[in-house]
Amino acid sequence: MSAAHGAAPPGRRIRLGMVGGGEGAFIGAVHRIAARLDDEYELLAGALSASPEKALRSAQALGLARAYPDYATMARAEAARADGIEAVAIVTPNDQHAPVAEAFLAAGMHVICDKPVSTTLAQALRLQELARARGRILAVTYNYSGYPMVRHARRMLRDGALGTLRMVHVEYLQDWLTEALEETGQKQALWRTDPARAGAGGCIGDIGTHAYQLAAFVTGLKTHSLCAELSRFVPNRALDDDAQILLRYVGGARGMLWASQVAPGNANELRLRVYGSKGGIEWSQELPNQLHWSPFGQPTQKIERGTAAANADAARVTRLPAGHPEGYLEGFASVYTEIAQALRAARNGAAVPKELSFPDITDGVHGMAFIEAAMRSSRQGGEWVGVGVDEAL
Amino acid sequence: MSAAHGAAPPGRRIRLGMVGGGEGAFIGAVHRIAARLDDEYELLAGALSASPEKALRSAQALGLARAYPDYATMARAEAARADGIEAVAIVTPNDQHAPVAEAFLAAGMHVICDKPVSTTLAQALRLQELARARGRILAVTYNYSGYPMVRHARRMLRDGALGTLRMVHVEYLQDWLTEALEETGQKQALWRTDPARAGAGGCIGDIGTHAYQLAAFVTGLKTHSLCAELSRFVPNRALDDDAQILLRYVGGARGMLWASQVAPGNANELRLRVYGSKGGIEWSQELPNQLHWSPFGQPTQKIERGTAAANADAARVTRLPAGHPEGYLEGFASVYTEIAQALRAARNGAAVPKELSFPDITDGVHGMAFIEAAMRSSRQGGEWVGVGVDEAL
Amino acid sequence: MSAAHGAAPPGRRIRLGMVGGGEGAFIGAVHRIAARLDDEYELLAGALSASPEKALRSAQALGLARAYPDYATMARAEAARADGIEAVAIVTPNDQHAPVAEAFLAAGMHVICDKPVSTTLAQALRLQELARARGRILAVTYNYSGYPMVRHARRMLRDGALGTLRMVHVEYLQDWLTEALEETGQKQALWRTDPARAGAGGCIGDIGTHAYQLAAFVTGLKTHSLCAELSRFVPNRALDDDAQILLRYVGGARGMLWASQVAPGNANELRLRVYGSKGGIEWSQELPNQLHWSPFGQPTQKIERGTAAANADAARVTRLPAGHPEGYLEGFASVYTEIAQALRAARNGAAVPKELSFPDITDGVHGMAFIEAAMRSSRQGGEWVGVGVDEAL
Amino acid sequence: MSAAHGAAPPGRRIRLGMVGGGEGAFIGAVHRIAARLDDEYELLAGALSASPEKALRSAQALGLARAYPDYATMARAEAARADGIEAVAIVTPNDQHAPVAEAFLAAGMHVICDKPVSTTLAQALRLQELARARGRILAVTYNYSGYPMVRHARRMLRDGALGTLRMVHVEYLQDWLTEALEETGQKQALWRTDPARAGAGGCIGDIGTHAYQLAAFVTGLKTHSLCAELSRFVPNRALDDDAQILLRYVGGARGMLWASQVAPGNANELRLRVYGSKGGIEWSQELPNQLHWSPFGQPTQKIERGTAAANADAARVTRLPAGHPEGYLEGFASVYTEIAQALRAARNGAAVPKELSFPDITDGVHGMAFIEAAMRSSRQGGEWVGVGVDEAL
Repeated sequence: MSAAHGAAPPGRRIRLGMVGGGEGAFIGAVHRIAARLDDEYELLAGALSASPEKALRSAQALGLARAYPDYATMARAEAARADGIEAVAIVTPNDQHAPVAEAFLAAGMHVICDKPVSTTLAQALRLQELARARGRILAVTYNYSGYPMVRHARRMLRDGALGTLRMVHVEYLQDWLTEALEETGQKQALWRTDPARAGAGGCIGDIGTHAYQLAAFVTGLKTHSLCAELSRFVPNRALDDDAQILLRYVGGARGMLWASQVAPGNANELRLRVYGSKGGIEWSQELPNQLHWSPFGQPTQKIERGTAAANADAARVTRLPAGHPEGYLEGFASVYTEIAQALRAARNGAAVPKELSFPDITDGVHGMAFIEAAMRSSRQGGEWVGVGVDEAL
Repeated sequence: MSAAHGAAPPGRRIRLGMVGGGEGAFIGAVHRIAARLDDEYELLAGALSASPEKALRSAQALGLARAYPDYATMARAEAARADGIEAVAIVTPNDQHAPVAEAFLAAGMHVICDKPVSTTLAQALRLQELARARGRILAVTYNYSGYPMVRHARRMLRDGALGTLRMVHVEYLQDWLTEALEETGQKQALWRTDPARAGAGGCIGDIGTHAYQLAAFVTGLKTHSLCAELSRFVPNRALDDDAQILLRYVGGARGMLWASQVAPGNANELRLRVYGSKGGIEWSQELPNQLHWSPFGQPTQKIERGTAAANADAARVTRLPAGHPEGYLEGFASVYTEIAQALRAARNGAAVPKELSFPDITDGVHGMAFIEAAMRSSRQGGEWVGVGVDEAL
Repeated sequence: MSAAHGAAPPGRRIRLGMVGGGEGAFIGAVHRIAARLDDEYELLAGALSASPEKALRSAQALGLARAYPDYATMARAEAARADGIEAVAIVTPNDQHAPVAEAFLAAGMHVICDKPVSTTLAQALRLQELARARGRILAVTYNYSGYPMVRHARRMLRDGALGTLRMVHVEYLQDWLTEALEETGQKQALWRTDPARAGAGGCIGDIGTHAYQLAAFVTGLKTHSLCAELSRFVPNRALDDDAQILLRYVGGARGMLWASQVAPGNANELRLRVYGSKGGIEWSQELPNQLHWSPFGQPTQKIERGTAAANADAARVTRLPAGHPEGYLEGFASVYTEIAQALRAARNGAAVPKELSFPDITDGVHGMAFIEAAMRSSRQGGEWVGVGVDEAL
Repeated sequence: MSAAHGAAPPGRRIRLGMVGGGEGAFIGAVHRIAARLDDEYELLAGALSASPEKALRSAQALGLARAYPDYATMARAEAARADGIEAVAIVTPNDQHAPVAEAFLAAGMHVICDKPVSTTLAQALRLQELARARGRILAVTYNYSGYPMVRHARRMLRDGALGTLRMVHVEYLQDWLTEALEETGQKQALWRTDPARAGAGGCIGDIGTHAYQLAAFVTGLKTHSLCAELSRFVPNRALDDDAQILLRYVGGARGMLWASQVAPGNANELRLRVYGSKGGIEWSQELPNQLHWSPFGQPTQKIERGTAAANADAARVTRLPAGHPEGYLEGFASVYTEIAQALRAARNGAAVPKELSFPDITDGVHGMAFIEAAMRSSRQGGEWVGVGVDEAL
């Protein structure tokens, strides 16, 4: 167990607030566990629902010290307190991400926002500008980047173990929307298939963007252009439920990205494969404690989290010995814990320490550029379109 | 995410203390995360090391409200406070389990003790008697019983899905003691291979007992007798590092148990297979989110945690949707959370609610009976010996 | 073991010749084993190399009854004999497939040709015409269609088990051309990367066409159009070594096809996934004895070859009980054995029996249409192009 | 494809006869394919059933040149012919193995006998004596020894890659006898559960002996003693259907062997694990093309048949490139092909070439010693008994 884990020394915990995540929500509880797991935060305040009554009731149920009926009130009130929150976690449906983030950045607080960071690229760029102007951290919880073996892979590729990168294949497959679940009134399905709340992308925004970020995080490759087929397979669905995409990376590598919410038998099958001139790697979120590494011409090795073969970047975010599986919550918590480390540095006016690699608004902007490019390509019948942030504006 | 998870309502958290788990320890930090994960406990007091200075330094590093130089002082002082701890977690080396548990039970507190609960069966029986006499809960953290798919399997077997049970095969394989790690001074290896601190069993006590408890927990079978070969493969090692055992269960089922700490390529490979007249199941700790179920004559099914196919017993201890892996800490936390539910019932003088199934001193006693029987058999050249708790005395 | 296997009744064996497959060849020996395995053929004649001396030497080494210096001589001579061969197996490099097939069809013999059946679509269409005109069978050894669980899947889809088909994902990954093996003079690499012998397609023709045929064989879907990125990643290579393709099927299903010869860690990883409104399937050539079937909302089932759960189409081409793996040679042999059954029907002037489903010139034509469309799309910068056989001309 | 495969040079094929394997048999057809696959044998004569009419009818159906009503007639007649068979394959139920083998050895022919070689150790020893006296080869088809990665493992262990061997775990699990299949009249179940035809061991003789031979073949270890629990789980079954065994090897290694025919979900799961002071290996018959090798302290490697990482012993019995799976028939055929190589050496009066490692009567004798020791131990309530061939007499 690495030194950082197990407990926070007294007085070090980050004072945290939360917007969204009240009754019936999913991701809010995940963020709370993630914040709590390494004892790096204390959750003090919240505006946990768009409905004021629900917001207050939910806060009480959680035992929050300070409950607010809405996020604007909360931002003002917390900014006015000497012991106010230092950071806010935003776990609302997508359409509220940008307005809430803006309010708290404007009030001088750091922001931890779920993905996608906004519903348009323009909003994301505005947030980026605002965070810069205010000198605040705007983290975006692309949580899969917190898995130890993802970190291991990223370091391997940076160190050149694969040689020149050639092909990337990333897929994120689910099956929960195989039928018209939204027509049953199920809350998660309702908002995630509703353009007004999810944004213009369905599957592409919900999980396609995770797949895209994972590939970029590990490979460091920039996307030049893409060709996308977004499909709506379930009748009457308002948003895409499947996305098949070809990618051209700057420098000549080629990629395939597949995201689907209608692939029976797949729950959260996020899987990345990268091949270069010297070898290949493979990683899957459902079996996250292993990385398969195939040096060309030699047997494939199964590198296990927590062993001597796992590198220092993996070890930094490892809590347990090999063979005791860590999972989704631990990866999510590692992102939170790295953000806490950055926030503590910020208390002293220091920049984000170099050894940290949690995703932030830059990932958020690239995510939105990807979503918009994919939708543009698909609308144009699968034409190739650029993905550069500049040209996308 | 089931209702119980995500946060504890205000005022409900159990006041917890800890003995052991200071600097350099492993399992103490695991217990702390497990207690924290579902926000069911607040850790207030500790005597974290056998060395008073280390104990105080460790408590300060963790920000504990009340630090004690030794466990006896702590038991007395906490018993005297109106806001004293309600329960203590014992995470010392094995030889201290029983004396510490006795002290806190005597002081009127509940106990959460790591396994094995003692170093002799006689001690375990005394603890059982004491807990009964004082009306206190004495939980033993056989944590693998907290995995959702272990709960699923247990329920399936109770409901008769496998028909008459015939064969059980359980193994727990590690490799970290393949070489004489204890000679390098590594702390975990030192005490776990030292009869004075670990008790008379090495591998059999450290992990064999986990395997034995898992099989018993899932199958509900009582052991009639066993035949054991305990080996010390590494030269100069004081305790067994491998155990191969045949088991005869009451009722006619037959079992094999293999525990090893010298099996290269295995980190914590705890794997259970059970076969009956109607089907078979298989579960592995390294891939804990799946249970393989083979109804005789039909294809094997992979039952996933978090899906509709997982039963209510699994769902009770499930936090995340399918495909987002839960791991060792979540299973451990589920044991802690169930203990908290029992402790809250105890606050009101109620018995342990029936739906809970965390392991307790009964498991602790059976674990010690197993260890002693295995050692007796091995000393007698692999003779068959009884395992019944009565005849073992 | 199904009735058909184990031995051919006397006098029933097909009289077979072979062109290509002499010294240093790979696939020739595979065809010979495939023909021999079920004892359905006797190999009597051959022109085993483009070099007359090698051809004769190779035939002698194999103990062939009749050795020929070249295929034209062989076609004439065998046609003139009362006991001449009934069919010829063509196992030369690709550029010779069409001329040899034409010669033997013209001489009145049936043909079993390795894939791709030609180097241009126009040739393939000409062969199709010729075979029809002469009333001869022109089988093409897309051998993966011979695997029992591929047959099982095909039947499931025909019977509607998956509902409306939505997505197809097929990939065929190898790594043997990761470096410039052709520069070392290795024979297989030499011809397969030489446009003069392999045809205009490299990876796309060698293995992409296998992947394409497998998807079509199982799904029965017709391709409407595609968008292809063919890459040459290894410097100085004359042909593509990687192909990433999006497919639009007639009827609205969408597909992705990836073929690569530069993916380290993959030997012959041919893997097919198909998803529909009611469920999904997955099959992999490297683990061919299982089919994973995921009915929506229920656990994934592992259907094993040789069990009661395998359907009649699988059972027809199954030799062994479950758990005793059948592999590549058995699948290849099943194609050969089905061809023999058709040839015996032809002896009596009967049409190909309906229960047979070995691939033939129709698959060959579609394969060439696919290759040409992919190359056209790639040359045009990844534009979408039609794949219909008519429009491709 | 190694040089030996693909075809036999003219005149080299071994003249083979067969006893047993007529209508309704399973293993006879396997032997015929195994003999044919590499074109090393021609099957000329047979007494294919204990019933003379069935024997003649079966031989005709197979197109055998010479059909006999019974084996004694066949042995005499073939011995009298100049072109008589050189070897006989015995594929009857177990009780006929020894008498048939004796008859053909006495007639001067080599013998290829299915396992177990007899129904008693005494018979096996007599056969060994007779084969020696007559200077004939008596091969026993423990076919799993023919798998390439089993050969690879054997060589690794001989070369010391694992250091001092410590633990062996071998299991062979089936499920086909989970219910009382013999009561339905199914032919395979009938004779295999009938002491008069199968011999005194059921599961232990049918598959336990395969597991035992595999472990011995790979490790080279001699068994000192064992402790066995043989069970009959299915009511009214005459023979054991499950065997759980502890083994003490000469030199200090310890082993566990589990054979079962009542383990639902297992078809032919033969799996071997061996651990030593320097590393561990794992191999499974259902995924035979890979060997998992775990050098202590380093990642586990997946060594693939057909790659550069596979050693020369594996390459000798490899036909196909990596990724194209070879299976049960290929492994069986490799045993047959090695026997053919020995038989050709014998034609010239030469001894069995050293590079061959097909199993023979020595394995047969050890197999019977194992069966008898296991049955003796079980009868004596699970006592430890010696397994040495001498003391077993």
